[in-house]
Amino acid sequence: MKILFIGDIVGSIGRETLESYLPRLKRKYNVDVVIANGENAAAGRGITKNIFQDLLHMGVDVVTMGNHTWDQKEIMDFIDDTDYLIRPANFSEEAPGKGMTSVSKNGHTISVINMHGRTFLPPHDDPFKKATELVEEAKKLSPIVFVDFHAEATSEKIAFGWHLDGKASVVVGTHTHVQTADSRILPGGTAYITDVGMTGPYDEVLGMKKEDVLYRFQTNMPTRFEVPKSGRSVLSGFFIEVDNSTGKAIHQERVYINDDYPFQG
Amino acid sequence: MKILFIGDIVGSIGRETLESYLPRLKRKYNVDVVIANGENAAAGRGITKNIFQDLLHMGVDVVTMGNHTWDQKEIMDFIDDTDYLIRPANFSEEAPGKGMTSVSKNGHTISVINMHGRTFLPPHDDPFKKATELVEEAKKLSPIVFVDFHAEATSEKIAFGWHLDGKASVVVGTHTHVQTADSRILPGGTAYITDVGMTGPYDEVLGMKKEDVLYRFQTNMPTRFEVPKSGRSVLSGFFIEVDNSTGKAIHQERVYINDDYPFQG
Amino acid sequence: MKILFIGDIVGSIGRETLESYLPRLKRKYNVDVVIANGENAAAGRGITKNIFQDLLHMGVDVVTMGNHTWDQKEIMDFIDDTDYLIRPANFSEEAPGKGMTSVSKNGHTISVINMHGRTFLPPHDDPFKKATELVEEAKKLSPIVFVDFHAEATSEKIAFGWHLDGKASVVVGTHTHVQTADSRILPGGTAYITDVGMTGPYDEVLGMKKEDVLYRFQTNMPTRFEVPKSGRSVLSGFFIEVDNSTGKAIHQERVYINDDYPFQG
Amino acid sequence: MKILFIGDIVGSIGRETLESYLPRLKRKYNVDVVIANGENAAAGRGITKNIFQDLLHMGVDVVTMGNHTWDQKEIMDFIDDTDYLIRPANFSEEAPGKGMTSVSKNGHTISVINMHGRTFLPPHDDPFKKATELVEEAKKLSPIVFVDFHAEATSEKIAFGWHLDGKASVVVGTHTHVQTADSRILPGGTAYITDVGMTGPYDEVLGMKKEDVLYRFQTNMPTRFEVPKSGRSVLSGFFIEVDNSTGKAIHQERVYINDDYPFQG
Ligand SMILES: [Fe+2]
Ligand SMILES: [Fe+2]
Ligand SMILES: [Fe+2]
Ligand SMILES: [Fe+2]
Ligand SMILES: [Fe+2]
Ligand SMILES: [Fe+2]
Ligand SMILES: [Fe+2]
Ligand SMILES: [Fe+2]
Repeated sequence: MKILFIGDIVGSIGRETLESYLPRLKRKYNVDVVIANGENAAAGRGITKNIFQDLLHMGVDVVTMGNHTWDQKEIMDFIDDTDYLIRPANFSEEAPGKGMTSVSKNGHTISVINMHGRTFLPPHDDPFKKATELVEEAKKLSPIVFVDFHAEATSEKIAFGWHLDGKASVVVGTHTHVQTADSRILPGGTAYITDVGMTGPYDEVLGMKKEDVLYRFQTNMPTRFEVPKSGRSVLSGFFIEVDNSTGKAIHQERVYINDDYPFQG
Repeated sequence: MKILFIGDIVGSIGRETLESYLPRLKRKYNVDVVIANGENAAAGRGITKNIFQDLLHMGVDVVTMGNHTWDQKEIMDFIDDTDYLIRPANFSEEAPGKGMTSVSKNGHTISVINMHGRTFLPPHDDPFKKATELVEEAKKLSPIVFVDFHAEATSEKIAFGWHLDGKASVVVGTHTHVQTADSRILPGGTAYITDVGMTGPYDEVLGMKKEDVLYRFQTNMPTRFEVPKSGRSVLSGFFIEVDNSTGKAIHQERVYINDDYPFQG
Repeated sequence: MKILFIGDIVGSIGRETLESYLPRLKRKYNVDVVIANGENAAAGRGITKNIFQDLLHMGVDVVTMGNHTWDQKEIMDFIDDTDYLIRPANFSEEAPGKGMTSVSKNGHTISVINMHGRTFLPPHDDPFKKATELVEEAKKLSPIVFVDFHAEATSEKIAFGWHLDGKASVVVGTHTHVQTADSRILPGGTAYITDVGMTGPYDEVLGMKKEDVLYRFQTNMPTRFEVPKSGRSVLSGFFIEVDNSTGKAIHQERVYINDDYPFQG
Repeated sequence: MKILFIGDIVGSIGRETLESYLPRLKRKYNVDVVIANGENAAAGRGITKNIFQDLLHMGVDVVTMGNHTWDQKEIMDFIDDTDYLIRPANFSEEAPGKGMTSVSKNGHTISVINMHGRTFLPPHDDPFKKATELVEEAKKLSPIVFVDFHAEATSEKIAFGWHLDGKASVVVGTHTHVQTADSRILPGGTAYITDVGMTGPYDEVLGMKKEDVLYRFQTNMPTRFEVPKSGRSVLSGFFIEVDNSTGKAIHQERVYINDDYPFQG
């Protein structure tokens, strides 16, 4: 199975950039399934029903989330009605939605799990223990298991990768909005990257207008951050091919497209 | 001027890896000056006088530090005797050592500045303000200014890069031990990368034995972290060419060497 | 000089409680000057011009602030027009307002300084260094110096108290909304209390409806906190008498009034 | 049942202070059971077997711990051999020791539970959920349930108190080393205090030499903290009387003894 993952889509620029490149990427990599992190899709903060449906129409099969899951209140109203939008599985038992789903494509099934880190972040349930449980459960359905670990600290993300090495097919990090260069297949057969990076404005700070973010760092004064409506963009993704019978990754490739690293058809 | 920067050297594996590749890298890139972050050079914690001198003998011109600066008490005894070991400039006025130095190579002078972030880290002096002051001072000496910003959060590092765009020749991030893929020359002419990554063990967590780190994340129990003495290694660096008269970066290139990304001679 | 300080006034309940007890307290303690922390006076978040003026009309002479200073945007418009509303002095140089003021009462002048902690809080400028500077400046005007240190950690607050012992007349902590029992006069003559506590709802969590706060702790789900409009209340204050010629504290007394600890006239 | 709780005992001064006052306190309050937090008993860091036994000999019935539980490695060797030393119950399942115990005195049984907060602290298991489970279990044994919640933030501690109001007989906070003045019996019958405070050096910072702590705050330089061996001391405790049949608190009283607040026999 050929999997394309798209890192945190930020605002309308992010959505438009995805729409513009996705057909070419699907063709280039002969993609079976597209997974995307949509926690910043609505102007940087959460996701709306309309935007979620737009992503599905573009060709995204499953949307994962993160710390911004609940930023748009309306997600509460539709997250339980769809199988294709998941939020971190180690959120509270009282949280709406679910943290694992599966899709079948071309005769093969992939489970997708979303998980949240805790270093420099709120004390959600233990992601290491929860991931072990869910991956085991997923394995009953299919050997192909994809995990989006939304976390801040490199230590926690790398440890999490080793934790699932040989158990999940793919572990990707998200949340820092900067792609890391360390993509690899771990010795147990798990494709891993510390962070896939973001899809949205290229010349700002994590997708937010740089002047505002700079002002905050320079003054510690409250500032409202905004995603610009225009400007250059970046697309950050990760392509993985998984052996359908073993669930092991057999190929991994970073996808990083912007004016400095143009798309290679 | 052609500058090679080496990211956080971790333990004896890191030092040996550097020693093994540095001659080839200097040849390949025709390097004028070598700068290296040595905050983890002594078994992962700080630097000793012997290790510092070893690095100089290998061909490192300036060593920068970070949050681990004082881990080896003996640094207090020699940091004030050398011009080639600097620690973050926004440390306290009472801290030994200094945060800026300069070296001349082949007729040109480069200033090297070390700075520390504050997000998820102790409240050192304002790095944005301090960097502005020091870069201005450095410019009186030479247009070529290199800054190692030792920080955790991608937001703070990217904001810092924009803050110095057009002012410094190069801004590199260090501390997360994972190389990022976002190296570029910003519009004002500053070469930038969010994190250069580490030089040391390849199959561990930030250079520390993965079993110990995993145990800590899985149990929150106290654990002593150790750098293994053997195993596969990674070298993470950043190569930049700067125009000697303008101080603008004219070329940048990530250096990332391990079994998955072998050295290309 | 006899000084009454009122801890963080929270919402309308807090203001009404103050209004109800202040005349009695002034009478009981024969108070010369009233200082109050008003950072939560406007429904728990910041202060408005109307509310500030109400506090002055009640008999408050100087209002101090804290991390909630800017919650009500309109403060930007009037903070520079008054001498009786100050915000932490170690905020950015670009912040509106000022961090020190003075008032004269019955022939004597008192300087009031507001300062902000950094442990578990944003990296404002060094409060220890800034306090030394401001206290020195204040001493030129009068020996009577009052400092409200708005901070979280007991370690930072106690250290700050020792830092100013013998220099300031009074150091009070605010921000945790719970009065501490450790009020004392330090050996150098500085009256000190780690936290004065809050003035507002008695049966909630820091003045916010307990059901909402509990839900947040139990689920880590986003929750909007609100100050209830009715219910039992608490008033937390600190009374100090300072020798007018030496500026040393000669008496200190906690003020803590609620149904469990009723006002003693 | 009449219960005396002693807050964090710090170093030899703390132990000697307890030894000196405990007989008088037991007499004054006609105490049935003594519980003490011993996480700092061994020179500020953890507890040893000898020190634990000394506390028992002094008359302490149960010792609770906190974030410093594992500071003395030898605790690993004896914590599983005693019923009278407990550590936070929401530590990892892999941690040695246990988080709940019980003792019978004068014909009545009290369960003692130790729990750890998570705000500004490591992400231990959910203390709110765990406390509900354990209190329910304890109630099968006896209606008298005592909980030591070792936590930093006032918000988390107060919320925790409300969470157990009407379920536990007593909820005390520990960890900040400063006694709070807010002791009360909550409407459901649970005696509560945000923090009992520490027992040890009176003129330092949380029991550690103030010069060292001040140096750290003033410089952010690494500093080794030490408990002084001599000097004035403070004893901080909390006395509670619980109705044996209902398990409701019927009386509560802060105990705070030092040169400023001398023991009243
Ligand atoms: Fe995120
Ligand atoms: Fe994001
Ligand atoms: Fe490092
Ligand atoms: Fe570091
Ligand atoms: Fe506050
Ligand atoms: Fe407040
Ligand atoms: Fe303690
Ligand atoms: Fe503690």
